[in-house]
Amino acid sequence: MMFMVKIITRKVKDIEPLENALLIEGLPGIGHVGRLAAEHLVHEFKGEKFLELFCYDFPPQVLVKDDGTIEYMCAEFYAIREPKPMIVVLGNTQALSPIGQYHLAEEIVKIGIEYGANFVYTLGGFGVGKLCEEVKVYGATTSKELAKKLKEHDILFRTDGGGIVGAAGLMLMFADLNGIPGICLMGETPGYLIDPNAAKAVLEKFCKLENIEINMEELEKRAKGMEQFIEKIKKFEEEMLKAAQAKPPSEEDLRYIG
Amino acid sequence: MMFMVKIITRKVKDIEPLENALLIEGLPGIGHVGRLAAEHLVHEFKGEKFLELFCYDFPPQVLVKDDGTIEYMCAEFYAIREPKPMIVVLGNTQALSPIGQYHLAEEIVKIGIEYGANFVYTLGGFGVGKLCEEVKVYGATTSKELAKKLKEHDILFRTDGGGIVGAAGLMLMFADLNGIPGICLMGETPGYLIDPNAAKAVLEKFCKLENIEINMEELEKRAKGMEQFIEKIKKFEEEMLKAAQAKPPSEEDLRYIG
Amino acid sequence: MMFMVKIITRKVKDIEPLENALLIEGLPGIGHVGRLAAEHLVHEFKGEKFLELFCYDFPPQVLVKDDGTIEYMCAEFYAIREPKPMIVVLGNTQALSPIGQYHLAEEIVKIGIEYGANFVYTLGGFGVGKLCEEVKVYGATTSKELAKKLKEHDILFRTDGGGIVGAAGLMLMFADLNGIPGICLMGETPGYLIDPNAAKAVLEKFCKLENIEINMEELEKRAKGMEQFIEKIKKFEEEMLKAAQAKPPSEEDLRYIG
Amino acid sequence: MMFMVKIITRKVKDIEPLENALLIEGLPGIGHVGRLAAEHLVHEFKGEKFLELFCYDFPPQVLVKDDGTIEYMCAEFYAIREPKPMIVVLGNTQALSPIGQYHLAEEIVKIGIEYGANFVYTLGGFGVGKLCEEVKVYGATTSKELAKKLKEHDILFRTDGGGIVGAAGLMLMFADLNGIPGICLMGETPGYLIDPNAAKAVLEKFCKLENIEINMEELEKRAKGMEQFIEKIKKFEEEMLKAAQAKPPSEEDLRYIG
Repeated sequence: MMFMVKIITRKVKDIEPLENALLIEGLPGIGHVGRLAAEHLVHEFKGEKFLELFCYDFPPQVLVKDDGTIEYMCAEFYAIREPKPMIVVLGNTQALSPIGQYHLAEEIVKIGIEYGANFVYTLGGFGVGKLCEEVKVYGATTSKELAKKLKEHDILFRTDGGGIVGAAGLMLMFADLNGIPGICLMGETPGYLIDPNAAKAVLEKFCKLENIEINMEELEKRAKGMEQFIEKIKKFEEEMLKAAQAKPPSEEDLRYIG
Repeated sequence: MMFMVKIITRKVKDIEPLENALLIEGLPGIGHVGRLAAEHLVHEFKGEKFLELFCYDFPPQVLVKDDGTIEYMCAEFYAIREPKPMIVVLGNTQALSPIGQYHLAEEIVKIGIEYGANFVYTLGGFGVGKLCEEVKVYGATTSKELAKKLKEHDILFRTDGGGIVGAAGLMLMFADLNGIPGICLMGETPGYLIDPNAAKAVLEKFCKLENIEINMEELEKRAKGMEQFIEKIKKFEEEMLKAAQAKPPSEEDLRYIG
Repeated sequence: MMFMVKIITRKVKDIEPLENALLIEGLPGIGHVGRLAAEHLVHEFKGEKFLELFCYDFPPQVLVKDDGTIEYMCAEFYAIREPKPMIVVLGNTQALSPIGQYHLAEEIVKIGIEYGANFVYTLGGFGVGKLCEEVKVYGATTSKELAKKLKEHDILFRTDGGGIVGAAGLMLMFADLNGIPGICLMGETPGYLIDPNAAKAVLEKFCKLENIEINMEELEKRAKGMEQFIEKIKKFEEEMLKAAQAKPPSEEDLRYIG
Repeated sequence: MMFMVKIITRKVKDIEPLENALLIEGLPGIGHVGRLAAEHLVHEFKGEKFLELFCYDFPPQVLVKDDGTIEYMCAEFYAIREPKPMIVVLGNTQALSPIGQYHLAEEIVKIGIEYGANFVYTLGGFGVGKLCEEVKVYGATTSKELAKKLKEHDILFRTDGGGIVGAAGLMLMFADLNGIPGICLMGETPGYLIDPNAAKAVLEKFCKLENIEINMEELEKRAKGMEQFIEKIKKFEEEMLKAAQAKPPSEEDLRYIG
């Protein structure tokens, strides 16, 4: 099997493949809506991490944690068995290049199917640039039958001619190319905040569609934690920027020496 | 067979290969001239879609349609049997990178030959930045004999030293490298409008060269529909831009979280 | 054999491999010095074209000639047998990306060796940003012995710590990695003109080093022809720019339609 | 074995593999801290060069030395046997693209393991944008046990949520993926100077952790040499810039001719 953009995986735990599982995507995106919603599923339904995925088109770095250990740029696969089989994919990054995004989406769908998925959900935000009093949830799907089902659940269709960029869009395409259906749920979000409200709205529609229940209490708390972390990164970046501006060395200085 | 930029296909319908068919390219380009002209051929001659092509260097997204279903970035192959065998390639995108454009052009020519093509036509616009009262049609080709034929049909030769960028140019090169001839027809166009006049002028020359007839009535109507669609996309993009400017999050916010 | 950036060749003529030939690079570069010098060698010594090379990282386009036929972006290999065996590589482009430049340089050296080369010359300009009354020629090479030889021929060494970018530099590296020596000759040039004086100076040093003679009469005439061609391209680009500015369509308009 | 970004090596000397060696990274980076420290190790412990590595994603150029010979962009592997087995990797560049950085880091770790390494150290600077009176040394590592050890040696942990970019970070990831531990040591540095103080601080911590001794006398002298070299490059670049601004030719002029 050849990947144009190399992708490798590390098995964290041997698990029995699931049956008729939902593959659920929660990579970072606008308002962190999808990631927040997917993380909540993992938390509430006690998802078990079984696989890590590393893509050579992720940002070329590692993150340093407060305890001195490092965190890799990766996507993690979690298995959930109750209330219904799910494989949830969390991650701290998307692929950087267009080609990398195609390969990443294809590989995630392939792994999902290998572990028993036969349906794909991608969760995300739909940035509207202003605060939303009541969060609308938009959907898009691989077939007219599913579109009808979405409509019955009061999920709206966008009429803006726009697209769904990144894994949330491409995983639906690769689902279809692999013969399984898929749905994307997008919660309206200002786009510049970690948005637990949009995540909640998306999860509510998801649960109704799948006829399951989930406790939302911890969702807001988790959003707070994520917000603090991102604030910290932002501050770090600003300081790095200041440092870099102290006396800007030429790019070549940093890149090579004789 | 290895592709450096991965390209996959999906057979939509089993068809008998054609014989001595023309392979006709109508991917998006300036004034949408080529796409409009090629689409008109498919419509008037009842082209039958038999193959879809997906390139991992297309924009990493899917498009959302008003009915809630999604449209993939792809190129579609249509077979026409009468008035003469043709394989028409329509698409909603070109490849993004130079390397991707080479691989895409090569693969389209290869598929065309596989299904019976032995001649390539690429159709496009030649942007001149102003309205054209009478649309001139320019040509370029893989041999001096064909150049003579173009001249006999009052098709002009550019003398600007410029090039033909993208699939319209590279498919001629790969035609030649595969031992079959090719012609590019370019209709003068302002370049900033969907231009049915240029498409009509290109089609007229094409029909004369190939000694076929085609009804042009629907062409203008089709251009209107395409214009509306593009207006919608433009409006969407403007709103997204406004949303993005409400409070610009750093790129890193959107790209990864800890 | 796998290339990461695909490169293909087309044999134009069957030739007997040369023996102990010089592989001489004349791809476009600053002042077109190398290309001009190499083209002069091909012309004066009646080089015979035997191979064309196409790299998928060349600009994704074809050029239109005044007679309606097209010219591909490519590198051409010419065989010269007298006054001494040479393989000269002319081209109308370099590779676009860093990775492409490595693969292109490697492949040219590989082909050269296959056809009998055991020494590499790369010819180019050394831009100094001002007119040069007397053109100095700088050299760089793969061994101390050859450096000594260059010095004996009054070829200067740069002491600026700078590099040789593109094929002219990388072909020396791949020569060395393949166990054969190489020399780069660089003629001082303002850098913004087609510079036959620099080409002449480079050729003179080359001829002395190789103990051959060459008639320089046609060199200046050839430079004039090249200058006119480039003027034409420049004018074309300016008009295209004006056209593009008439009413700038968004990039998305041109790239895809629904 | 397939590399997406081609990497090749050249054996300079046959050596016996080491046992339980430390693999130590010293590629260029902020303040040249890592490179300076690693070079000092090679010098003081009489490292023996045994391998050169060339990556097709290095800058596409060669460097010209004052004696007329050329230096390739490459990474060099040195073997040290006393006071303890080490494989030190020096280089004059990092890979240019994210994907290249992944492949380079993976390949260096793979070669290190092949020659007997079972532990990775990456050495670098931590830019703070101002002069540091007393240089603090920060660490990051692949396990909690090692983090504890770092703490015992008064090595600090960053709490900024930032990352370690390039080989210094990714080599730790590939160490872990290959089942061996790794440590990154970062010396505080203004970031815009060649910083022997930071290199010294990093080496001191390294020596304490590994229970070895090293003479620091030559370190500062070596930093001076490196500084002069970089000054020369900078001056060269400024002159090139002036030359380029004399009359800026269009990019197309330089890139291809007809």
